[in-house]
Amino acid sequence: MDHRVDLNADLGEGFGAYRYGADEELIPLVSSANIACGAHGGDPSVMRRAAALAAGHGVVIGAHPGYPDIAGFGRRYMALSPREVTDSLLWQIGALDGICRAEGTRIRYVKPHGALYNAAARDQAPAEAIVGAIRLYDKGLMLLCPAGSALAAAAEANSVRCAREFFADRAYNEDGSLVSRSMPGAVISDERSVCERVLKAVKTGLVTAQSGADISVRFDSICLHGDNPVAVALARAVRSALSREGVSIKPFAAGDN
Amino acid sequence: MDHRVDLNADLGEGFGAYRYGADEELIPLVSSANIACGAHGGDPSVMRRAAALAAGHGVVIGAHPGYPDIAGFGRRYMALSPREVTDSLLWQIGALDGICRAEGTRIRYVKPHGALYNAAARDQAPAEAIVGAIRLYDKGLMLLCPAGSALAAAAEANSVRCAREFFADRAYNEDGSLVSRSMPGAVISDERSVCERVLKAVKTGLVTAQSGADISVRFDSICLHGDNPVAVALARAVRSALSREGVSIKPFAAGDN
Amino acid sequence: MDHRVDLNADLGEGFGAYRYGADEELIPLVSSANIACGAHGGDPSVMRRAAALAAGHGVVIGAHPGYPDIAGFGRRYMALSPREVTDSLLWQIGALDGICRAEGTRIRYVKPHGALYNAAARDQAPAEAIVGAIRLYDKGLMLLCPAGSALAAAAEANSVRCAREFFADRAYNEDGSLVSRSMPGAVISDERSVCERVLKAVKTGLVTAQSGADISVRFDSICLHGDNPVAVALARAVRSALSREGVSIKPFAAGDN
Amino acid sequence: MDHRVDLNADLGEGFGAYRYGADEELIPLVSSANIACGAHGGDPSVMRRAAALAAGHGVVIGAHPGYPDIAGFGRRYMALSPREVTDSLLWQIGALDGICRAEGTRIRYVKPHGALYNAAARDQAPAEAIVGAIRLYDKGLMLLCPAGSALAAAAEANSVRCAREFFADRAYNEDGSLVSRSMPGAVISDERSVCERVLKAVKTGLVTAQSGADISVRFDSICLHGDNPVAVALARAVRSALSREGVSIKPFAAGDN
Repeated sequence: MDHRVDLNADLGEGFGAYRYGADEELIPLVSSANIACGAHGGDPSVMRRAAALAAGHGVVIGAHPGYPDIAGFGRRYMALSPREVTDSLLWQIGALDGICRAEGTRIRYVKPHGALYNAAARDQAPAEAIVGAIRLYDKGLMLLCPAGSALAAAAEANSVRCAREFFADRAYNEDGSLVSRSMPGAVISDERSVCERVLKAVKTGLVTAQSGADISVRFDSICLHGDNPVAVALARAVRSALSREGVSIKPFAAGDN
Repeated sequence: MDHRVDLNADLGEGFGAYRYGADEELIPLVSSANIACGAHGGDPSVMRRAAALAAGHGVVIGAHPGYPDIAGFGRRYMALSPREVTDSLLWQIGALDGICRAEGTRIRYVKPHGALYNAAARDQAPAEAIVGAIRLYDKGLMLLCPAGSALAAAAEANSVRCAREFFADRAYNEDGSLVSRSMPGAVISDERSVCERVLKAVKTGLVTAQSGADISVRFDSICLHGDNPVAVALARAVRSALSREGVSIKPFAAGDN
Repeated sequence: MDHRVDLNADLGEGFGAYRYGADEELIPLVSSANIACGAHGGDPSVMRRAAALAAGHGVVIGAHPGYPDIAGFGRRYMALSPREVTDSLLWQIGALDGICRAEGTRIRYVKPHGALYNAAARDQAPAEAIVGAIRLYDKGLMLLCPAGSALAAAAEANSVRCAREFFADRAYNEDGSLVSRSMPGAVISDERSVCERVLKAVKTGLVTAQSGADISVRFDSICLHGDNPVAVALARAVRSALSREGVSIKPFAAGDN
Repeated sequence: MDHRVDLNADLGEGFGAYRYGADEELIPLVSSANIACGAHGGDPSVMRRAAALAAGHGVVIGAHPGYPDIAGFGRRYMALSPREVTDSLLWQIGALDGICRAEGTRIRYVKPHGALYNAAARDQAPAEAIVGAIRLYDKGLMLLCPAGSALAAAAEANSVRCAREFFADRAYNEDGSLVSRSMPGAVISDERSVCERVLKAVKTGLVTAQSGADISVRFDSICLHGDNPVAVALARAVRSALSREGVSIKPFAAGDN
């Protein structure tokens, strides 16, 4: 782990009259923008505004595909077949990439969303289906995923380069998995605690698990959440803390120049 | 008009458990496949099967985007703003192109669908919005549209190459417009009549309007319908008639090789 | 016009993870709740929460059906046939009424939404289609609509009782129509001005049109908007002003008891 | 088991331009019509035509709600919470009942569709959620479900009357469950075999399981499939065979008169 790191956030998730997240404020703070693709959230105009903002700030764009379920925001598991996952991802990735072309840029990586992310972190079939879509679309695209996951394994087995992410505001179990959101203490909202964890992780590669033990974490990017009221303040605080300590914020994927 | 012509048809319009049209039978008969993009019809897996069939038969693929209205099959006018049309088309074109990549091919042209086609044939604003999307996506893409339409004018004004289509089974008014489907005789279903009209149009550039007068028609492609029971038989008949008369069937757009 | 009036607002328009409006704050302030039905906005759980809140506050519930277009929030005109409008409304009205049953209440009136409201205010065909749906569903349901509209005429011609609404925060033309939102001064956001207009209208049946002339307005209900940041404050102000002046706030339609 | 039985089939599952099944042919052959509600299939106009046909033939109507997934036809499991299932069912049941009112009839029972049916046959939580929706909507509605299922248990525990169904064209395991569709011999397509099984089951309450052993089956209704080419012929054959043997075909639920 050198003293540079990427910051990523989920963006472009509004839909028509429905606003979601804080694209205008968050995009200048991150180095990688995971933009929704219209399946779990994001409509073409919302996606295009997010892509334009990202391009304008030199932020690298990744596709953030999910289950085709606007009503459930992609957070409900759906029993798609592996082939359906692959085909849906080709469709979603292509759709966002088409929109990026209008803004003079292209997507550089893929990060699955919500229940699809969770299924693919755990199970080989959806993981292979996602990696398969990436390979079919463009072998040069990277995958952003959790370290030690089925997704990371599928990427490695299929020669897709992957970047791993660390969750700034989530508690970890000793085995490196996230504490379930249904457990107390799963989400860390105290700004100072979050910044301390991030700095420690970046500098030492260690995070204090909920048990109190320090565990090793390998990552290339820090995931910031954008869907709660304090998200922007937290993102600003993390970014400032990193800058203050001389950690440079750089996209993990090569961008347009 | 030389003695070669393109045959196009709307394909890949099924949705999930819902079958539509006769992709397997029609694709080997055409030279250009207008494949739906998931907005008015077509789901990712249906689109991919159509793209695979087209690629396998050396048929050139075009995007067939429509209003986002599966329930109305894109046949109901929707008051999208020009910007919404452009953004939706970028999204739809990109989605299909993403799927084509998985089948080792790419889209070469765009033909709008249904009520969007009709609106853009008539009005400048949607026509410009469609042409704008094409230019933003890929200046090399062609547009397939009716001769003498607002769409054709917008394409010319913006340096997008366009191909014009002739409707094999539709009656024409003397001004070159189609007789409305609500009028008697608007659709010609007699196989022999259709073939005679097609051959005459290809060889002489003339079609007999409903009034009885011969009018001039300029076209690069003949549109075959695929959504009725006799479509495949009619397509076979037209193809045979053209071959018999020494007219070669060639895509209007350059394909993969 | 006696010194009692109804206050209505559009509610239950969120969708899944997407929040919209301020149901919790607004429902206690109105006497009639127009609840979305899942076509332009509103999902079953959002609708049920709104229905439960309304039932809990003794607020009368009306169905607020719109075009089937979540992405456009029902604000884009769609060329549905009259039969499609009627069938969609039966479906939407029934859906909300089903949800109301779970909360021990029922719908009492129908107010169309957005572009459907505008089309039916102006044109006879959609107006008749809406009134037809009401009659087929339950002849006892009322219609909430603008005075002098095609909707009001269709209701009268078909023996459906209708209540007319006054827009608290919209400027009027001399002919009694609303000043288009695209014109300057169309929306009145100053709290004091809105309250003065409302009180004058309730007490005298007059409103000062944009030209400066006083025109007569007949209404049974005042429409409050709920979809902008100051909506709740404005609703509170209007309600207080009415109470201060001794105007009682009563639903126009008979409720459960 | 007396010598009368109900015949049910899934109907009204088309969507817009997409036809599905054979409503016109099947409805005169059944005594109970499970009509889709717009979530997994069925649009308001398709539903209304099916309801009109059923009403015209004196066929009792039941709601056939499913997961909200037109693209997957409700056949893909979706991880809805129990509350989401209940709310969605209230919405779907009410929607169909609203449409039935326009045809002078009402729904009399509920049969869940596809993956929701399977989940609720197996697991208590979705079963309770479905039964809860029925009770909230109308305690007099019946439930149509498989014998010995979690659904049947939930209905009994909550005082909802249920009717059990026998699958005319499916092979059974010795424990009374259906042989999975992925196994050879799961679907019986030979007309004569189907008729013999049905007659034996009606008269003796026994069916020969795939193992060769006769097992006891209790049922009030026979499910006929409508979504394959031979469905109508099979339905006609079953109906004729029953009539020939003096078995009367009667709805399990009380209808309009």
